[in-house]
Amino acid sequence: MIVRPVPRFWELFYVLQGSILPQIALPLLSLGIWAALVVLCAGWMPGAFPTAAVSTFSFFGIALSIFLGFRNSASYDRWWEGRRQFGALVLEARSLARECQVWFAPTQKERADRMLGRILLFPYALTHQLRGDSFPQSVLSELTAVERGGLAATPDPASALLQMLSEDLAGAVREGSLPAAMHQSFEIHVSALAGIQAACERLRHTPLPYPYLLLLHRTVYFFCLLLPLALATPLGWLTPLVTIVVAYTFLGLEALSDELVEPFGSAAHDLPLLAIARGIEISVRQLRGDREIPQPMEPEHYRLM
Amino acid sequence: MIVRPVPRFWELFYVLQGSILPQIALPLLSLGIWAALVVLCAGWMPGAFPTAAVSTFSFFGIALSIFLGFRNSASYDRWWEGRRQFGALVLEARSLARECQVWFAPTQKERADRMLGRILLFPYALTHQLRGDSFPQSVLSELTAVERGGLAATPDPASALLQMLSEDLAGAVREGSLPAAMHQSFEIHVSALAGIQAACERLRHTPLPYPYLLLLHRTVYFFCLLLPLALATPLGWLTPLVTIVVAYTFLGLEALSDELVEPFGSAAHDLPLLAIARGIEISVRQLRGDREIPQPMEPEHYRLM
Amino acid sequence: MIVRPVPRFWELFYVLQGSILPQIALPLLSLGIWAALVVLCAGWMPGAFPTAAVSTFSFFGIALSIFLGFRNSASYDRWWEGRRQFGALVLEARSLARECQVWFAPTQKERADRMLGRILLFPYALTHQLRGDSFPQSVLSELTAVERGGLAATPDPASALLQMLSEDLAGAVREGSLPAAMHQSFEIHVSALAGIQAACERLRHTPLPYPYLLLLHRTVYFFCLLLPLALATPLGWLTPLVTIVVAYTFLGLEALSDELVEPFGSAAHDLPLLAIARGIEISVRQLRGDREIPQPMEPEHYRLM
Amino acid sequence: MIVRPVPRFWELFYVLQGSILPQIALPLLSLGIWAALVVLCAGWMPGAFPTAAVSTFSFFGIALSIFLGFRNSASYDRWWEGRRQFGALVLEARSLARECQVWFAPTQKERADRMLGRILLFPYALTHQLRGDSFPQSVLSELTAVERGGLAATPDPASALLQMLSEDLAGAVREGSLPAAMHQSFEIHVSALAGIQAACERLRHTPLPYPYLLLLHRTVYFFCLLLPLALATPLGWLTPLVTIVVAYTFLGLEALSDELVEPFGSAAHDLPLLAIARGIEISVRQLRGDREIPQPMEPEHYRLM
Amino acid sequence: MIVRPVPRFWELFYVLQGSILPQIALPLLSLGIWAALVVLCAGWMPGAFPTAAVSTFSFFGIALSIFLGFRNSASYDRWWEGRRQFGALVLEARSLARECQVWFAPTQKERADRMLGRILLFPYALTHQLRGDSFPQSVLSELTAVERGGLAATPDPASALLQMLSEDLAGAVREGSLPAAMHQSFEIHVSALAGIQAACERLRHTPLPYPYLLLLHRTVYFFCLLLPLALATPLGWLTPLVTIVVAYTFLGLEALSDELVEPFGSAAHDLPLLAIARGIEISVRQLRGDREIPQPMEPEHYRLM
Repeated sequence: MIVRPVPRFWELFYVLQGSILPQIALPLLSLGIWAALVVLCAGWMPGAFPTAAVSTFSFFGIALSIFLGFRNSASYDRWWEGRRQFGALVLEARSLARECQVWFAPTQKERADRMLGRILLFPYALTHQLRGDSFPQSVLSELTAVERGGLAATPDPASALLQMLSEDLAGAVREGSLPAAMHQSFEIHVSALAGIQAACERLRHTPLPYPYLLLLHRTVYFFCLLLPLALATPLGWLTPLVTIVVAYTFLGLEALSDELVEPFGSAAHDLPLLAIARGIEISVRQLRGDREIPQPMEPEHYRLM
Repeated sequence: MIVRPVPRFWELFYVLQGSILPQIALPLLSLGIWAALVVLCAGWMPGAFPTAAVSTFSFFGIALSIFLGFRNSASYDRWWEGRRQFGALVLEARSLARECQVWFAPTQKERADRMLGRILLFPYALTHQLRGDSFPQSVLSELTAVERGGLAATPDPASALLQMLSEDLAGAVREGSLPAAMHQSFEIHVSALAGIQAACERLRHTPLPYPYLLLLHRTVYFFCLLLPLALATPLGWLTPLVTIVVAYTFLGLEALSDELVEPFGSAAHDLPLLAIARGIEISVRQLRGDREIPQPMEPEHYRLM
Repeated sequence: MIVRPVPRFWELFYVLQGSILPQIALPLLSLGIWAALVVLCAGWMPGAFPTAAVSTFSFFGIALSIFLGFRNSASYDRWWEGRRQFGALVLEARSLARECQVWFAPTQKERADRMLGRILLFPYALTHQLRGDSFPQSVLSELTAVERGGLAATPDPASALLQMLSEDLAGAVREGSLPAAMHQSFEIHVSALAGIQAACERLRHTPLPYPYLLLLHRTVYFFCLLLPLALATPLGWLTPLVTIVVAYTFLGLEALSDELVEPFGSAAHDLPLLAIARGIEISVRQLRGDREIPQPMEPEHYRLM
Repeated sequence: MIVRPVPRFWELFYVLQGSILPQIALPLLSLGIWAALVVLCAGWMPGAFPTAAVSTFSFFGIALSIFLGFRNSASYDRWWEGRRQFGALVLEARSLARECQVWFAPTQKERADRMLGRILLFPYALTHQLRGDSFPQSVLSELTAVERGGLAATPDPASALLQMLSEDLAGAVREGSLPAAMHQSFEIHVSALAGIQAACERLRHTPLPYPYLLLLHRTVYFFCLLLPLALATPLGWLTPLVTIVVAYTFLGLEALSDELVEPFGSAAHDLPLLAIARGIEISVRQLRGDREIPQPMEPEHYRLM
Repeated sequence: MIVRPVPRFWELFYVLQGSILPQIALPLLSLGIWAALVVLCAGWMPGAFPTAAVSTFSFFGIALSIFLGFRNSASYDRWWEGRRQFGALVLEARSLARECQVWFAPTQKERADRMLGRILLFPYALTHQLRGDSFPQSVLSELTAVERGGLAATPDPASALLQMLSEDLAGAVREGSLPAAMHQSFEIHVSALAGIQAACERLRHTPLPYPYLLLLHRTVYFFCLLLPLALATPLGWLTPLVTIVVAYTFLGLEALSDELVEPFGSAAHDLPLLAIARGIEISVRQLRGDREIPQPMEPEHYRLM
């Protein structure tokens, strides 16, 4: 994710890093050249291009804006839901850790430590499943060798960690160190973590319906290609400039939508999963009273992973 | 559901599979021919078609875009709600299975196995009720012969499975192997499964209000038929091209809406219910420690069932 | 509610049943005649109507579309919320019935039967309060004569049924046949039924703010009446056709909004409350093992009550 | 709130009561006169006003419609949320009363009566805090003289009533007449009532951001003032009529938004808080078996307070 | 936050305080001068600027309005979610305080006082973490010196307070003064407070995707700069006025969006966090029966902090 302050007025015209511009520079340039060619032709053959076409393109451009606006909202909603799920992850992991620490630490320090270890591993496991990041070595040492083996073998380590947590809780109820009436106070957070995992996987594995993508990509490109034909006669040599500005808006929003629609990818504007996982690790370790606590992740070139 | 990567620039112009184009090719072609005829007429009888009509059509086209945008959102919301319900199904089935396994397996292995069997059957039962798919044989063997008979006889096997699960839980409370205070921890998931079933059936049996369909279908077709009359004079032989591009956008979104509005059908872009059911089966079997675990379903020609 | 398959291409032009057309046929016809008169006048007195007015009307029509789009969404949301509440009713009634049957039937068959009777009566009571439908005789026999009398006397029979259910549960806790720790598992569904009733009554008794209705009705009619003045000069004898098509879209959406905004009425597109109540009755009777089970309701002329 | 049936076709043109028209009559009239003056000037000085300006105004009017549409949705959402909260109030008050009556009345009639008294007072207290309405005398007699004094002294009587309810419940748990495991069944409704109060106060004390109001008011007025300049040349003496119809739509939606944005005020379209409070009182008194039960409030001149 | 009544008609034209105007005065003025220069040039060199360009700009302006409308909604939603979270904070803090007071005060006055002290500190800790405000001295005295030290040392004092509350509750369960079955009634509010903190931090640390900002800022400025070129010929000396009015709308909405998007900042329209924290302090102190109760915060120059 790009983390930058709002640009000042004069920065607007040259800021590139964090902009969507580099990704669409090539199509924009091509469209500019194409528009210039059209204007040249219009000069050579007056009357070749219809003068009254602007109105038609106006209508079609507005229709496209409405549909792009819809696609934009749908993409942004996916991105924001991804963020919301990772916000909920922070909450549920912290709450479960707090309750475990408060209830078990005074009498069963070892159980509390073990449970907090599983909790701080969970976000890394989820990030691993969503984006393929590997587990940090320092964090794997929370598990016994046997558990590490089990985790490496399963395709779904996040669920395996939740199962371990459930077993810890059920064991505590059975041996009497947790009243049955309080079991749900804890289990509710484990279920919430499972819910977060399910929601993230749903986002990850269900793209927007493919034809939206195809249909809008196609019509936007058609529109940008036909636009100079309509503008050449009335606007003359302003045509390439206007074509590029319009195309910048349309293709830029398209390209941004394509990034946001997959919030768990590793494109520039995707969510900083690792930084969030690290933040949870820090909270849980502080709670447990660990001596070595890692630093929060810092953005590199305004970008957080 | 179609599962494909985002198309590259040059693929945009020839990708067909996964596109909505084949479904609307015939109307598009007809409209193109009609537009060509109109241009011919306009050439034979200059002045037959009004020149100032573009503005009117512009307004009407924008009004239609706004209404189509609304219908599009409503359809997409239905599709996404369907997806959300099946995501919740994954979650609740997994959570209930986890809790049953953790609590019952150490002391009542048989009860745990039986309950997990009912859980992995549930998604197939739901798919059966929503889409008419039959139960895989390998999965039916989770039930006793008597239960299988009962399931075949009832019109609502999903509810029957939930009732069996409730009976298992109530039995466990009565015989003392589950504290009454923990009953709700389990029952909450059974109720959630019932809620998912109710939400899916609501989607399945309540279409969008019929007149939306009719009204928008009609006005979109009228619009596309009248459009060449307005374009013929100002645009000349560009008319068929522009008509086809505009109609591609409008009819394409219409056709896509018609598919998404019924997310549980078996059209190309509908949800992969069977693949999700298989995924749940795999999770539950792994949890139970089964030896034979089926493979996840793979898309055929980019399509997942 | 109208239940029909999507119309085929050629049906679009003649399907009437389920269409909104009959309701707005008269205004459409009047507008067509009015448009024809305007065109006649324009022929007699050239220059009487402004030629440049199309642009103004274009803007005003788009503004109206945006506001109609808003009203349309608000109406559809009300309709869909009504549907959602009746979907939740199916869920909660079934879940409560399932839990009562599972817990009480083995030891207190009579209490279970009585409670399931109240549950299957509840949807009819709600339908009665929302739409004035009377109770089916076969269903009233679930109550004792005294209870029937009480139900007939109160203006709010649905709440009275919920109170009976609460009393059954409290009684069971007091006499020890239901552990206090499980009471909430049951009560949660009774509260949910009360919540559904409250939500339905809120929809039923709070219309959209009256001035929306009035303001939009008025401006839509003004717009349709003024439209021929603007079109007469540029479009000539196409004016009546275009006026009718535009008015069909606008008045049609208006008329549909007026129906959807009251989802519990008995207009053609309102919700099939009785069919849903019957469906719940069937589920509950099957669960209880009744011998006589009614048939699901069938649509008559594509219409479900 | 205005409660009226949908107007018939011919009523559209003269219904005033319940319309927003009276509130904006003066600005509309002024704008009409202003437009007439502009047309006069345009007649005296042909060429003084640009002929091509309609297109610019068209764009600006559409932009304004989009922003007004946004503001309209935001206002309507606030109004509907207010309604939803008062709907939830009906639900939670009734549910809590039902549970108290069912559980306490058979053994502790006095406690049940006292608690139901606090419940029926709560909606009046909330109305008092939101709108300054005073408590009906008949309702204050539910409290002891000491409690009445406390209620009069505190700036937040609604919270004080909830605290009394909580104390009743805690007392019942302590003295053993309510099992601790059932405490949450009751407390959940008290918390819900507190939640309703918090949500209503949030709506009441957080207006829409002030600049939206100012910015949109200003641009709408500018637009309506400049509009005749653009219309005078092309439309001639139709200008005042068109200006008034357009301004009626824009100013009318603005004025309506201003009313809906504060749903708890006492303007014509605000929510009928007192009628709802009276409805709850009736339900609770019926439940408790009171002999004197007040009548529901009736609308006066179609208006409910 | 600006707290002012709706402006009267004539105030519309001069109210500045609370308006967004001062922030965009400089760009507006520059644009006005630029527009005047363009009109001058157009006078010197007739034909230098295209006359038919208005239609293109019309389309582009509408497209921008649609995208700005989207951004506007997203910003307003963030602002409103911030408000909703602080509304929930009021609710949960009050509810937890009420339950603690009711349950513990009669038997364990000291524990109740201590817990209420932590509760009234929590909103200040949250405000501190979101906006850097320091703790009021009078409020810190609720803690022991050791706790104060711990709070000063941790980067996350809000979580530390919640942990103290959890420890109080767990201690009470362990020593038998709180039945285990009631533990969740209290813990549910502590978890809710943690949820509010997580939601606020999510809003605070996740800006809108940076390219939206950049892309829309850029295209809005481009649009406003190019607009006079299109208007100069048809509108003449009305151009600067129209340019400024259009730019006021667009840049004003942009500037407002930039403020609302960070609801926890200290710009004029951001949320009054301190006033809310003070309000909670007052409620909790009244509940506890403190003798010294601070006054609610008053707006200064219509502005609440």
